[in-house]
Amino acid sequence: MMETSRRERLRAAVSLEIKQVAHQQITAQGISALTLRSIAKQMGFTPQAIYRYFENRDALISELIIDAYNDFAQSIQKASAEVPADAYGERLLSMLLAYRQWAIAHPVDFALIFGAAIPEQHVVQRITQEASLQVPALLGSVLFAAWRQGFLQPLPEYQPIPAEIEALLEDSRIALQSAMDLSDLPVELLHTMFLIWSRLHGLIMLEIGERFQIIKEPEALYRFEVLSILKAMGVSITKR
Amino acid sequence: MMETSRRERLRAAVSLEIKQVAHQQITAQGISALTLRSIAKQMGFTPQAIYRYFENRDALISELIIDAYNDFAQSIQKASAEVPADAYGERLLSMLLAYRQWAIAHPVDFALIFGAAIPEQHVVQRITQEASLQVPALLGSVLFAAWRQGFLQPLPEYQPIPAEIEALLEDSRIALQSAMDLSDLPVELLHTMFLIWSRLHGLIMLEIGERFQIIKEPEALYRFEVLSILKAMGVSITKR
Repeated sequence: MMETSRRERLRAAVSLEIKQVAHQQITAQGISALTLRSIAKQMGFTPQAIYRYFENRDALISELIIDAYNDFAQSIQKASAEVPADAYGERLLSMLLAYRQWAIAHPVDFALIFGAAIPEQHVVQRITQEASLQVPALLGSVLFAAWRQGFLQPLPEYQPIPAEIEALLEDSRIALQSAMDLSDLPVELLHTMFLIWSRLHGLIMLEIGERFQIIKEPEALYRFEVLSILKAMGVSITKR
Repeated sequence: MMETSRRERLRAAVSLEIKQVAHQQITAQGISALTLRSIAKQMGFTPQAIYRYFENRDALISELIIDAYNDFAQSIQKASAEVPADAYGERLLSMLLAYRQWAIAHPVDFALIFGAAIPEQHVVQRITQEASLQVPALLGSVLFAAWRQGFLQPLPEYQPIPAEIEALLEDSRIALQSAMDLSDLPVELLHTMFLIWSRLHGLIMLEIGERFQIIKEPEALYRFEVLSILKAMGVSITKR
C-alpha cells in the first residue's frame, strides 16, 4: 500500500516535470516543434520512457490545455470571490479585468487555449471540452444571475436580432446546456454573452500580437470597453 | 543589358520559389520551425545559396508578411471598387465582409500578419510597418470620407470618452499620420475605428481558432456585427 502510494507520487512528479519541460519548449519554439522525443531528449529519458506517462503527443497537449483552463478558471473564480455576490456590476468588472490579466500574464497558455495551430485540433478539443467550459460558466453564472435579478439587460443596440442569428443562438443554447442552465434566458442575452466574449477577445489578441503599438496603454482601452459594455447593459458601478 | 535582365528575372523566380516553399513549411509546421536551412534542404540548395536571396530569416519572414499585407490590401481595394464611391454604407459593408473573407481564406497569411509568435517581432514589424498600414488606410479613408460628408457618426454608446482614453487616442493620431490624414477627425471617430477593428478581429480570431464550434455559421454572426456597427453609426444600407 505504502509502496503503491510512493510510486503514484513519483509518477505524478515525473508527469509534472514532463509538462513543465513541454511548456518551456513551447515557449521557446512554438507548439508545432514540440515532440515527445524532444522532451525525452531534454530530460535524459529514452523516447519509450515518456510513453509510460503520456500515450501520445495529443494526450500531453490536451493535459497542458486542461491545466491552462484550470488555472484560467481559478483566476476568474478568485476575482469573482473578491467582490460581494450581489454587487453584480463590480463582480463582472472584476472578473472581466481578470480575464485580460490572466491572458497577458500567460501568453503561452492563452495561445494553447485559443491558438489554431494544433494539428490534431479536433481530437484535443474533444478531450479538453469539459475544462474549456469552466470560464464561460463562471462568467455566465454571474451575468445570468444579474439578469434574473433585474440588474442588467441584453445589449440594446443589437435588437431586434434577425431570425437567422436567433436560430444559431438556439443551437448554441443546447450545446452549452451541459455547463450551465440557460433554459430561461432570452436569446438576446445569449447573443450579448457572445459579443462580450468576442469584443474582449479582439482587444486581447491585438494586444498580445503587439498590434496596439500605437496605443500605449491597452489595459486602459480594455477597461473602458468593459465599463462601456456594462453601461450599455444598464449596469451601475459605484467603485471604479 | 539583356543579360542583366534575364538574370534579374531568374533571381525573382528563385526568390518567389523560396517564399512559396517557406509558405508551405509554415502551413505544415508553424512559423517557429522555419529556418533558411530547412528551405534550402527542400529545394536541394546549399544553405549558403539561400543567403544570396535573403540576408537572414527575418528578411524572408518580413517579405512573406509584406506579400500577405499586399494581397490583403488588394482584396479590400477590390471590395471597395465594386461599390459606387458615394454609397458609403454599402462600401464599408463590402470592405468589412471582405476583411473576414480574406482572413478565413488565408489563415496562414492572417496568422503571419496577426500572430505573436515571431521571435524577432520588433525587427520584422519595423520592416513591415509601411505595408501594415495599407488596410487601415483603405478602411479609414472610406470611414473618414463618410464622416466628412455627414453620412455617419462615431459610436454613441462610448461617449463621453474619458480623458485618459482621449490622450491615448491623440498619441495614435500622430502615429498614424504617415498613412492617412486624421488631423480634422474627432477623437471619438478614432476610437470608433479602433473598436470596429477589435470587434471584428475578435470574431475572426474565435472563428479561425475554431472556438465557435457551437455557432454553426460564424459568417452570419460576423455580418450581423458589421451591420449592427454600421446601424449604430447611423449609416443606412439599402442593399443587404
